[in-house]
Amino acid sequence: MSATAPRWRAGDLAERFALELRGDPDQSVAGVATLALADAGQLSFLSNPQYRAQMQGSRAGVIVLRADDAPLRNGTALIARDPYVAYAQIAALFEAQPAAAAGIHPSAVVDASATIAPGASIGPLCVVEAGTVIEQGAVIGPGCVIGPDCTVGADSRLVARVTLVTRVRLGKRVLVHPGAVIGSDGFGLAFERDHWIKVPQLGGVRIGDDCEIGANCTIDRGALEDTVLEEDVRLDNQIQIAHNVFIGAHTAMAGCSAVAGSARIGRYCLIGGAAGILGHLSIADRVTVTAMSLVTHSLTAAGEYSSGTPIQENRQWRRNAARFRHLDELARRLKALEKDSAP
Amino acid sequence: MSATAPRWRAGDLAERFALELRGDPDQSVAGVATLALADAGQLSFLSNPQYRAQMQGSRAGVIVLRADDAPLRNGTALIARDPYVAYAQIAALFEAQPAAAAGIHPSAVVDASATIAPGASIGPLCVVEAGTVIEQGAVIGPGCVIGPDCTVGADSRLVARVTLVTRVRLGKRVLVHPGAVIGSDGFGLAFERDHWIKVPQLGGVRIGDDCEIGANCTIDRGALEDTVLEEDVRLDNQIQIAHNVFIGAHTAMAGCSAVAGSARIGRYCLIGGAAGILGHLSIADRVTVTAMSLVTHSLTAAGEYSSGTPIQENRQWRRNAARFRHLDELARRLKALEKDSAP
Amino acid sequence: MSATAPRWRAGDLAERFALELRGDPDQSVAGVATLALADAGQLSFLSNPQYRAQMQGSRAGVIVLRADDAPLRNGTALIARDPYVAYAQIAALFEAQPAAAAGIHPSAVVDASATIAPGASIGPLCVVEAGTVIEQGAVIGPGCVIGPDCTVGADSRLVARVTLVTRVRLGKRVLVHPGAVIGSDGFGLAFERDHWIKVPQLGGVRIGDDCEIGANCTIDRGALEDTVLEEDVRLDNQIQIAHNVFIGAHTAMAGCSAVAGSARIGRYCLIGGAAGILGHLSIADRVTVTAMSLVTHSLTAAGEYSSGTPIQENRQWRRNAARFRHLDELARRLKALEKDSAP
Repeated sequence: MSATAPRWRAGDLAERFALELRGDPDQSVAGVATLALADAGQLSFLSNPQYRAQMQGSRAGVIVLRADDAPLRNGTALIARDPYVAYAQIAALFEAQPAAAAGIHPSAVVDASATIAPGASIGPLCVVEAGTVIEQGAVIGPGCVIGPDCTVGADSRLVARVTLVTRVRLGKRVLVHPGAVIGSDGFGLAFERDHWIKVPQLGGVRIGDDCEIGANCTIDRGALEDTVLEEDVRLDNQIQIAHNVFIGAHTAMAGCSAVAGSARIGRYCLIGGAAGILGHLSIADRVTVTAMSLVTHSLTAAGEYSSGTPIQENRQWRRNAARFRHLDELARRLKALEKDSAP
Repeated sequence: MSATAPRWRAGDLAERFALELRGDPDQSVAGVATLALADAGQLSFLSNPQYRAQMQGSRAGVIVLRADDAPLRNGTALIARDPYVAYAQIAALFEAQPAAAAGIHPSAVVDASATIAPGASIGPLCVVEAGTVIEQGAVIGPGCVIGPDCTVGADSRLVARVTLVTRVRLGKRVLVHPGAVIGSDGFGLAFERDHWIKVPQLGGVRIGDDCEIGANCTIDRGALEDTVLEEDVRLDNQIQIAHNVFIGAHTAMAGCSAVAGSARIGRYCLIGGAAGILGHLSIADRVTVTAMSLVTHSLTAAGEYSSGTPIQENRQWRRNAARFRHLDELARRLKALEKDSAP
Repeated sequence: MSATAPRWRAGDLAERFALELRGDPDQSVAGVATLALADAGQLSFLSNPQYRAQMQGSRAGVIVLRADDAPLRNGTALIARDPYVAYAQIAALFEAQPAAAAGIHPSAVVDASATIAPGASIGPLCVVEAGTVIEQGAVIGPGCVIGPDCTVGADSRLVARVTLVTRVRLGKRVLVHPGAVIGSDGFGLAFERDHWIKVPQLGGVRIGDDCEIGANCTIDRGALEDTVLEEDVRLDNQIQIAHNVFIGAHTAMAGCSAVAGSARIGRYCLIGGAAGILGHLSIADRVTVTAMSLVTHSLTAAGEYSSGTPIQENRQWRRNAARFRHLDELARRLKALEKDSAP
């Protein structure tokens, strides 16, 4: 952190985030750190109860915690209903966002028919193609390619080397990480006798306000209608979203998960890492899918769903896996025994 | 769609694609849409019988359908053996391909020893390195890096931000989507006592005519001989192809699937999303592997193959998964019971 | 291979790599090839015993092999304890590394506050941002974006189109393949009543000497402390490493594997392709995880671990998978039968 990092009084943090202060309102905070590493000039937080002992030994100048845990704290504390949320808000004060000068970098190649809002920033070595609109406050980081007929909403940020292919509409405050590709051709093929022919992908992609798209994600545009992410959808890295998928607001997906064409995912869902969702099915609101599970049919009720088998020492696993190959026969043999032993 | 979008008479479409017309040959078609959303100036199609009711209520000016379904249609229809194929061909007429001016964009960096055909297009901020050949009609979109000793065949298109590392040969009409990396080092390592040493990757990659490579795919070059995709291989997004893999013509792979080194996949295979294929094995022609299955041994006969367990509500799944850990013991106990109860 | 490829005498190779020579020390070697394809001017190797017959028919001028296999060889041979290691070392002599001119390409955009060592190479269309250091002998290939406050260690090589986002420290001789994104935001979210808020990701990434990062990998920076790869960690393509992961030295991970946040992986581990490791758990040194397995709890002992079920013809698999849904009930029924049949 540079010498010009901001400093906050504990009392001012309490006021700004409507938290109750216990201890010294003049305690100065110059940054945030883990309970284990924080020094007297830093703020930390206790969210997970298993770190209580660590909290009691922490040298942090201020600790954000629940009222229940406050008696365990000797020094200055900020009391929060949800310490992790309060910590996130406070930490944002100490995040040095890279400066992005408004205007178009001289090395960028911008089509004459593109509309760049005066306060937007187009970074070095970007390409912006015909008919595209970059709204006020949007930041297009270095090396991005924004194809034709796209819109990047106000205050959105494409970190670096993002590609929007065509007919992509990003809402406001959308954050897209490097390497993401949005609006590429959906995987539409028709089989004609002995070879494939390509089905034109004439739709686009619509991404709602406050969405976040992770590094190296791919989101294909629709075949006829659009691929849609409602607002506040959060995608981790390397996620694949096929054409005409619909993802409801506030759904979060962990890294390497994938959704096949025309699947519809509800709101407030949590999709685990490397989980897969087959095409043309529907997932209700507030469904959780655990990591590496494969959803093969629609899930019509909220709840948690899983597939797969547990990790085991390989030799044991081999024996069990070999039995799985004959599980149906095994069940039939059990049934036969039951019949035999019936009175 | 812009005001200059093309318009077609239904009769002309019938003639061009050798389809039987029923209804008004002068019906004008200005675009394509789904059955549900098409208006009187648009063409739609009925391929999946479950949309028959939707077809009957559709306002589409023209509908492509099978002869069997024609009696259900009131308005103008085009009769096709395979309506999806006919639709794909017609829709291509309405696809506005981004214009790519022939020649080298002034911002591109092209090595003096590269050969760029006069009709090829090198987009803004591309790099083309020594000894590389870009053939007639090829389009290198913005931000691509084409390393040394590569060939991009006639009429191929690298949409944007594609990387060909070295010794990559693309056939004709190959389409590569953004973020794809072709010709990177294969993952060749030799373990020397206490550390890894790198095995040089001296081969290349050969990709046949009419292949399509999805966004953010990776295809490594061979260790000594080449990694090979025959013609008309279709890769969805985020697919990983390791060194020295061979993929037969007309095979299609869905998103996030992966093939380990030196595996050989036949022709006309269908590999499901996130499926994995281990190294040094062989898959026959016309094999289908379902999503997220792991192929651990060679598959010598055409057919459909699967692994994994079904998705379930998590509490039930946990109980079943716990039993899987002891499946072998369970089978032994069943065997013992059978012996006991034998007459 | 160009006409200027190097030539080596077999005797000089023996001396250089401390191998025993059998046969003609003047045998000339102009390149390397497989046993099947090598000609009299090329060197090949026999490591896997199943290729013995192929070795005996090989036209290779020199073959590297184990002492045990030497009697089977008619022509010139080099005897190695580990022929694959010796082959890798010899092959490196024949690898034409693309030349990288020292200095900054005129098309690159380098911040005035960045430090570029005189012998480093910054390729065309690169961006290097504020405060970043590129050390002696490092090669930044075309189209890379190196964000602020990064260090690229001496003799490291970023092949092309690599992104280092911020606070990334690469050691010496690190090799990063195209499309890799290192230092992107970790996926840190806090749920506030009805929407997500972002948790600032204030840490960085530290990557040790001699690491290799595959194409289109993503490695997020830490939330507070750093994400760490110790020395000689080898990542294949499309691997996802979440924030605050720690990977011990000499661990190798195959393509498409993924590690969730704050997991700790030991030294000398082998992680199979598309395997997943959940967050906040710990894996001992020398653990092997087989392909597409999911590690859901800490693994405290060295060994090989697996999950999943075997690939089967789909019809059989369906029957077995259906039984898995009721495996717990099946086990209970077996238990009941055992009670009944107890004497």
